[in-house]
Amino acid sequence: MKKKIVLTGDRPTGPLHLGHYVGSLKNRLDLQHTATQYVMIADSQALTDNAHDPMKVRENVLQVALDYLAVGIDPTKTTIFIQSLLPQLPELTLYYLNLVTWNRLKHNPTVKQEIVQKGFGENVPAGFMVYPVSQAADITAFKADLVPVGEDQLPMIEQTNELVRHFNRIYKTDVLVEAKALIPKIARLPGTDGKAKMGKSLGNAIFLSDPADVVLKKVKGMYTDPNHLRVEDPGQVEGNPVFDYLTAFDPDLSGLEEMKAHYARGGLGDSIVKKRLVDVLQAFLDPIRTRRTEFAKDPAYVFDILKKGTKQAESVAAATLSDVRKAMCLDYF
Amino acid sequence: MKKKIVLTGDRPTGPLHLGHYVGSLKNRLDLQHTATQYVMIADSQALTDNAHDPMKVRENVLQVALDYLAVGIDPTKTTIFIQSLLPQLPELTLYYLNLVTWNRLKHNPTVKQEIVQKGFGENVPAGFMVYPVSQAADITAFKADLVPVGEDQLPMIEQTNELVRHFNRIYKTDVLVEAKALIPKIARLPGTDGKAKMGKSLGNAIFLSDPADVVLKKVKGMYTDPNHLRVEDPGQVEGNPVFDYLTAFDPDLSGLEEMKAHYARGGLGDSIVKKRLVDVLQAFLDPIRTRRTEFAKDPAYVFDILKKGTKQAESVAAATLSDVRKAMCLDYF
Repeated sequence: MKKKIVLTGDRPTGPLHLGHYVGSLKNRLDLQHTATQYVMIADSQALTDNAHDPMKVRENVLQVALDYLAVGIDPTKTTIFIQSLLPQLPELTLYYLNLVTWNRLKHNPTVKQEIVQKGFGENVPAGFMVYPVSQAADITAFKADLVPVGEDQLPMIEQTNELVRHFNRIYKTDVLVEAKALIPKIARLPGTDGKAKMGKSLGNAIFLSDPADVVLKKVKGMYTDPNHLRVEDPGQVEGNPVFDYLTAFDPDLSGLEEMKAHYARGGLGDSIVKKRLVDVLQAFLDPIRTRRTEFAKDPAYVFDILKKGTKQAESVAAATLSDVRKAMCLDYF
Repeated sequence: MKKKIVLTGDRPTGPLHLGHYVGSLKNRLDLQHTATQYVMIADSQALTDNAHDPMKVRENVLQVALDYLAVGIDPTKTTIFIQSLLPQLPELTLYYLNLVTWNRLKHNPTVKQEIVQKGFGENVPAGFMVYPVSQAADITAFKADLVPVGEDQLPMIEQTNELVRHFNRIYKTDVLVEAKALIPKIARLPGTDGKAKMGKSLGNAIFLSDPADVVLKKVKGMYTDPNHLRVEDPGQVEGNPVFDYLTAFDPDLSGLEEMKAHYARGGLGDSIVKKRLVDVLQAFLDPIRTRRTEFAKDPAYVFDILKKGTKQAESVAAATLSDVRKAMCLDYF
């Protein structure tokens, strides 16, 4: 059976955190053994709403690459590449823009929500409005069958597949391939403040690169059950981010079940649960931090990995573009 | 003094006509001696509203190239290239889209007018809405100082220069260059039906490739002064397309002045004026048709010219893109 092709990636706007690990990095570690996996550092996409701060994007390309290598994304198994270095992607984007109406873009639910979140008001950059079409270019350039996304990103996959069907129909071809969303089991880790989403910019994230003392401090300050005032009171496990994190990271499943039961019936203090979480996280993060520090000593080596991955990714995208141009009668010479 | 850089071109959606000659081709024949001139066959732009008819665009790339060579655009003096073969242009377009708001695009007067003309209604392709930004990419890729355009295209140059200033300001650079519009003296030849504009799709055009008998027929059927019923009546020269064409093409200026005076005072029949126009046009078109027929015998040779021009144009666009990426901190390796 043909290996599945997976396209995934991150916007280089900050270092990656535990939420990224649970929501995507962990999956990638599995997928790199079973699928043909492309991981894109989406600098062009990051620029759609960071055009005025290119240095931030530039610096985080390296930080994100370090995070990838530190968690164990293996460049001999996974192709890691920099989006903006593939000229095929903007070219595909422009062709696809001819197949989607202005109105359709305006009504993309994910984009509508993000416009509110980012406070663009009337000043939405046009590049931001068209980024779902750029994503369609990214996905189709690799003929990806599987795209790991959160539930909130499902309209993006829908938009991509609409374009795929439209393109294949009008150019009488089957060069483009529809993609399926791959939604991770634990899609989302809450923030340390108990808010639904851990976010780089929300100040509620534990980063993969956080030193041990920072992790300790962040866990100590974590939100728990606000009604669990005395140790002997019954505590709430559901919606308690400390238990959510333990569920995601504690390898001792039966120990964790016991702890949850104890907390629920009362008699287990938050400080003990947090102590367990600190131990679990440090055990998880220690080898990641060590590898990260090693790679960080040699950025030229990391960029060399990116260069090789980019070259490999470009040859795949170039083959697709060549088929696309042929279907569009643009194969002049 | 540094030679001016000119970027100009045509959408390959049909063969070129006398209106193109008067409005742009004539200028290019002069400019190729005094400026560094790039002439773009804008296939990508043609696809923004012809995405469903790529074969039309494909076939007209050759037709337009034949028209260029037939009128005397000299590929050793002018760089003729195919837009879609320069991947730098979509890449620049996407970067520029981050610097313009969605609202700004919506209010471009030229685009608004064209949306009405083309009857898009609610179904404007997104690619069509963003084409002014693609034009900015075309112009700036060549650091063009001069862009020959009709008056109706002035908002396009304005949009380009806004982007140039915005880009140079936020990326603290002077890599992009503002362009000036070059408005031809006789901007527009009316249609054979007397309508203001000669248009490929309006059925009122005399094409550079029309055979002699077709030209004869088209001139015979031309609109003149509708109140000039009897030969002895005074006729109207203003707004009379037959005289507009003579003004544009008749080399015998004093003879033409006499004819206009005679027509105005009465006693000169339309058929005589049209006879003169047929003679003038056949004399003008004969050598063009001969050259066109010669080139048309060897499309491989014509494509070879386009290939060489495209390669040359690409190296210029690549140098600009490299500067742009550097300014945007995207110069990774």
